[in-house]
Amino acid sequence: MNSREFREFGKAMVDYIADYIDNVRDRDVLPSVTPGYLEKHIPKETPVDGENWKDVLHDVEKLIMPGVTHWHSPHFHAYYPTAQSYPAIVGEMLSAGIGCIGFSWMASPACTELEVITMNWLGKLLGLPEEFLNCSEGPGGGVIQGSASESTLVGLLAAKEKMVRSTQKNNPSLSEGDIKGKLVAYTSDQANSSVEKSGILASVPMIHLPSDTKGRLSGDVLREAIRRDKAAGLIPCYVVATLGTTGTCAFDNLEELGAVCNEEGVWLHVDAAYAGAAFVCPEYRYLMKGVELCDSFTFNAHKWMLVNFDCSALWVKDARYLVEAFNVDRIYLQHQHEGKAPDYRHWQIPLGRRFRALKLWFVLRIYGTEGIRRHIRNHISLAKHFQELVLNDSRFEVVTSNLGLVCFRLQGDDSLTKELLEKVTANKKLYLIPCYTQQKFVIRFVVCSRITTIEDINCSWAEIISHANTIVPYTTDNSIMHEPRKNDYINLTTYQEPDDSMNEKSK
Amino acid sequence: MNSREFREFGKAMVDYIADYIDNVRDRDVLPSVTPGYLEKHIPKETPVDGENWKDVLHDVEKLIMPGVTHWHSPHFHAYYPTAQSYPAIVGEMLSAGIGCIGFSWMASPACTELEVITMNWLGKLLGLPEEFLNCSEGPGGGVIQGSASESTLVGLLAAKEKMVRSTQKNNPSLSEGDIKGKLVAYTSDQANSSVEKSGILASVPMIHLPSDTKGRLSGDVLREAIRRDKAAGLIPCYVVATLGTTGTCAFDNLEELGAVCNEEGVWLHVDAAYAGAAFVCPEYRYLMKGVELCDSFTFNAHKWMLVNFDCSALWVKDARYLVEAFNVDRIYLQHQHEGKAPDYRHWQIPLGRRFRALKLWFVLRIYGTEGIRRHIRNHISLAKHFQELVLNDSRFEVVTSNLGLVCFRLQGDDSLTKELLEKVTANKKLYLIPCYTQQKFVIRFVVCSRITTIEDINCSWAEIISHANTIVPYTTDNSIMHEPRKNDYINLTTYQEPDDSMNEKSK
Repeated sequence: MNSREFREFGKAMVDYIADYIDNVRDRDVLPSVTPGYLEKHIPKETPVDGENWKDVLHDVEKLIMPGVTHWHSPHFHAYYPTAQSYPAIVGEMLSAGIGCIGFSWMASPACTELEVITMNWLGKLLGLPEEFLNCSEGPGGGVIQGSASESTLVGLLAAKEKMVRSTQKNNPSLSEGDIKGKLVAYTSDQANSSVEKSGILASVPMIHLPSDTKGRLSGDVLREAIRRDKAAGLIPCYVVATLGTTGTCAFDNLEELGAVCNEEGVWLHVDAAYAGAAFVCPEYRYLMKGVELCDSFTFNAHKWMLVNFDCSALWVKDARYLVEAFNVDRIYLQHQHEGKAPDYRHWQIPLGRRFRALKLWFVLRIYGTEGIRRHIRNHISLAKHFQELVLNDSRFEVVTSNLGLVCFRLQGDDSLTKELLEKVTANKKLYLIPCYTQQKFVIRFVVCSRITTIEDINCSWAEIISHANTIVPYTTDNSIMHEPRKNDYINLTTYQEPDDSMNEKSK
Repeated sequence: MNSREFREFGKAMVDYIADYIDNVRDRDVLPSVTPGYLEKHIPKETPVDGENWKDVLHDVEKLIMPGVTHWHSPHFHAYYPTAQSYPAIVGEMLSAGIGCIGFSWMASPACTELEVITMNWLGKLLGLPEEFLNCSEGPGGGVIQGSASESTLVGLLAAKEKMVRSTQKNNPSLSEGDIKGKLVAYTSDQANSSVEKSGILASVPMIHLPSDTKGRLSGDVLREAIRRDKAAGLIPCYVVATLGTTGTCAFDNLEELGAVCNEEGVWLHVDAAYAGAAFVCPEYRYLMKGVELCDSFTFNAHKWMLVNFDCSALWVKDARYLVEAFNVDRIYLQHQHEGKAPDYRHWQIPLGRRFRALKLWFVLRIYGTEGIRRHIRNHISLAKHFQELVLNDSRFEVVTSNLGLVCFRLQGDDSLTKELLEKVTANKKLYLIPCYTQQKFVIRFVVCSRITTIEDINCSWAEIISHANTIVPYTTDNSIMHEPRKNDYINLTTYQEPDDSMNEKSK
C-alpha cells in the first residue's frame, strides 16, 4: 500500500469511526454471536496476493462488528469505563505514524521528554504531592504503564527487591532465597483480581484481608495481620490499597493504612485505577486523603479520563527502587546522554515502549482541565440521576452508590435480581454485570460512555423496568415519589469543600 | 471535540503521516536536541480551557518532530527494524475507534476470535508445526503479547509453575518455597537483555552460557551446565534459545538444545524476535530446524513483519500451563461462554488487552503472503548489496552478516571503528549502533525502513565512507574489486532449498 492509497484508506476509516460513534445507539450493546462464529466466515489461511483495502473495510462491518461488544454505547454499563475520545484516537494515529520505540532517551528524545512533561501535568491535575512528580527535586517520578496490572506488579517487584536488600543488610547471614521465601504482601478482599495475579507472578503470597461491611480495609486489620505474620517469622513487604474497588467503588482508609506501612517500613501502593480520575475535581480529593504516605500510586487514564487504552499512570516516590529492580544494561542500549533523562525501560517490564504520551498530551490540551472536569462531573451527575430513578421505585433498593457506579437490586431474595440480570442480558440492549456485596447479589450500573446523555440513562432504566415488570409486577405504589432512604446506601459522592491542604500540594 | 471536528482532525493527521513518510529522507535521522529541550517550550501545567486541534498539530511539527529519532527513515540502521505500515496504522485507528477491552470472549467476541484466526494464519505463514496452532486438536495455541520481553516472562512463569508442581508431586516433602529457591534457567551470553530481565522479574537465576565464536549456543554446553547444576542440587526449569541474536543475528543450535531439553524435561522457549519474520520465506526455515522440540516460540510481528508495535506473537504447545500459572477468577469476569473460547487474559500478564488482531489482519490481507515475502527478501537483498559495498573497500572487513544485518568494521585497531561510529553519529545523517563480537568492536548495519531502496543504501554507504576517509585515507587500492573473502564473515543467508519436511508441517 502506497501513501496515496493510505490517504484514501485512512480517511475512509476516520469517517467509519465517526459514523460508528454517531450511530452506536442503533446497535445492540451485546452481540448475538455464539463462540466460533467468525471462523465460519473467514478463510483458513492468509491470502496469497494482497487484497484491496475496500474489501477489508467492507468485512469489518460485515464480519467484525456483529461480534463486537460496544464499550462506547451509552447503554454499556459493565465493568468500568474504558476511555475512547477523538483527541486520543488521533494521538494513537500519530504514535503509529512516527512508530518509534522509546526505550531510551536517544531512541527518541521527544518520546521520553513528552512523557516526563505530561506525567507532571497529570500529577498536578490530580493534586498529587509534589514529591511524586518528575519535576520535583527528589527521586520521584511518573511513567506511563500499559495497565494497572503492570503498575501493581512493578510496585511489588520494586518493593520485593528493596526489602531483600534491607533485610540482607541487617541480617547478612540470610540468603536471598531465605528472605524471598518469607516475603508476604497484603490487600483487601475487595481488590481487583490483577492484584492477586501480581502476587502469583512475583511469587509473593498476596494475603486478602477482610474489608468492613462497606468494602473498606482499615489500618487495624492490617496492623494485626502484620503483627501476626512477623511473629510467625514472615517478612511483610508490600500493601496494595484500593481507592475505588472494582465491585462497589469502596475506598480503603488510606490514612490509616499509610500510618501502619510507614511505621513498619512496608511499601504502600495505591490502586486507584478507576476512581483516580475523579481527583481532577478538587471536591473528590478528600477520597485520597493520606496519599502522601504511599510509595507508589497508579490510576488508569485509559479508564475514566478520556485517553484510549493503554495509558496507566504510575507515580513513585523514589524511582531508584524501580531502576535497581529492573536495570539490565547492554552495550547496544547505551548512549552518551545516559543518566540525564529517565530511561523508562528501567521503570517497566517490557523493553519496548511506544509513544503513548502523544495521546495523553492531545487529550489534556484539547479538553483542558475544565473539559476533563466537566466530563467527570457529568458522569457522576448521570449516576446520581440513575440512583434517583431506582430510589423512586420501591421494588428496588440501592445497596451502594459512589462516583459513576450505582449498585442496586430488587428487594427480596437474590434470585429475583439474578433473574432480572439474566433477562436484561438476554435482550442485549444493555450490558450490566453483577457483584456480591453485604451478602447480597447486586447489579452494578456504571456510567461508561463518553457520549451518555440523561435520555440514555432514562432509556437504560426503562429497559431494566420492562424486565423487572415481568418479575415483580408493577403497582401504583411503586411509582410514588419518596425521599431517598438515606440508610439504604453509602453515599460518598456528596460534595465536600476542597481540602485546602491537599490543593496547596498541587501547586 | 465532536465527530465533525474529529473528521477534520483525523484526516489532517492522515495527510500529516503520509507526508511525513513521503518526505522522511529530508530529515536528519538523529535529532539535534539535548536532554531537557522540550520543557523549555511547553507550559508547566495542563491548559485550563481546551485548545484547538490545529494548534496541537502545529506544535507536533514545531516541538515534537525536532526531538524524534526517525525509525522509519531509510537511513536508520540501528537495533532492528520496528514495523510501520499503512495497513497496520489504519488497523490501530480502528482498534482505537472500537476501543473494546477483550479480556474475555464476552467482553468482545470478535476481539478473541479474530486473534485466534490471525494467529493460526500467522503460524501457518511461518511454517510452525500444527500442534502450536489454535486450530489443532490439542492444547496448543497462539496469542498476541505486547513484547518479546513479556512473551519470555510468560514462558518462564509457566515453566516455573509447571516445574514446581511436578517436583512437588515426586517429592511431597519439599515445600513450594524450597523448590522455587532451587530453580535455574539458561540462555546464551548473546541473548537479548529482556531474557536476563525476565529472570530477575521471575526470581529465577538466568544463567548465561558461553556461545561459540560465531555467537551460537550448542547442546553440549547446555547439557554440561544442567549436569553440573543438578549435581549441586539445583532444578533446571527453562531454557531460552535465540534465533537471531540482537548483536549479530546468530542462531542457537535448536535441534541440539531441543534434544537436551526434551531429555531433561526442561521447558524450551524460542526467542526469534527479529529473525522469525524470515520464516515466512520457505528458504529460511532451515534456520529454525528443531522448532518442533520447543514448548513456546515467540517472534515480533512488530519488528520485521509490517505490523506496528505492539504485536509479539507467542505460540505454546500446551496453553494449559499458562492458564494454570495465571488464572485468577472473579465473579465480575465470568460469563456464560466460559471455556468455549480462550480467555486470553489467562495467557498474559495484564488483565486488559486491546483489539490488536485488527492490525495483524489488515497487514496479512492487504500485503498477502507474497507481499510479505517480497518485503523480507527485499531487505535481505539490500543487506547483501551493502555487504558487497563493504567488501569492495579493503579498508573494511565484514565480521558477520545475516539476514538484514551486516556487522562491519575498519581493519585494524578497534579505536578506528569507534572513531568512525562517533563521527557518523555526530553528523546525524545515519543511526548505527555497535556491538562486540569475536573480541572486536563492530558496527551493526541493519536494513530497517520499509521504504528503503538501493539508492538509500548507496547513500548510507557514501556517508560512512565520507567519515572513513578522514580516518583511513583513501587510496586507489581500496576501490579495487575483489572476490569476497569468504573466511571474513559467517554467511548464513545463502539460499538453501526449502526443507520439505518442515514445509509439510505448515500445511
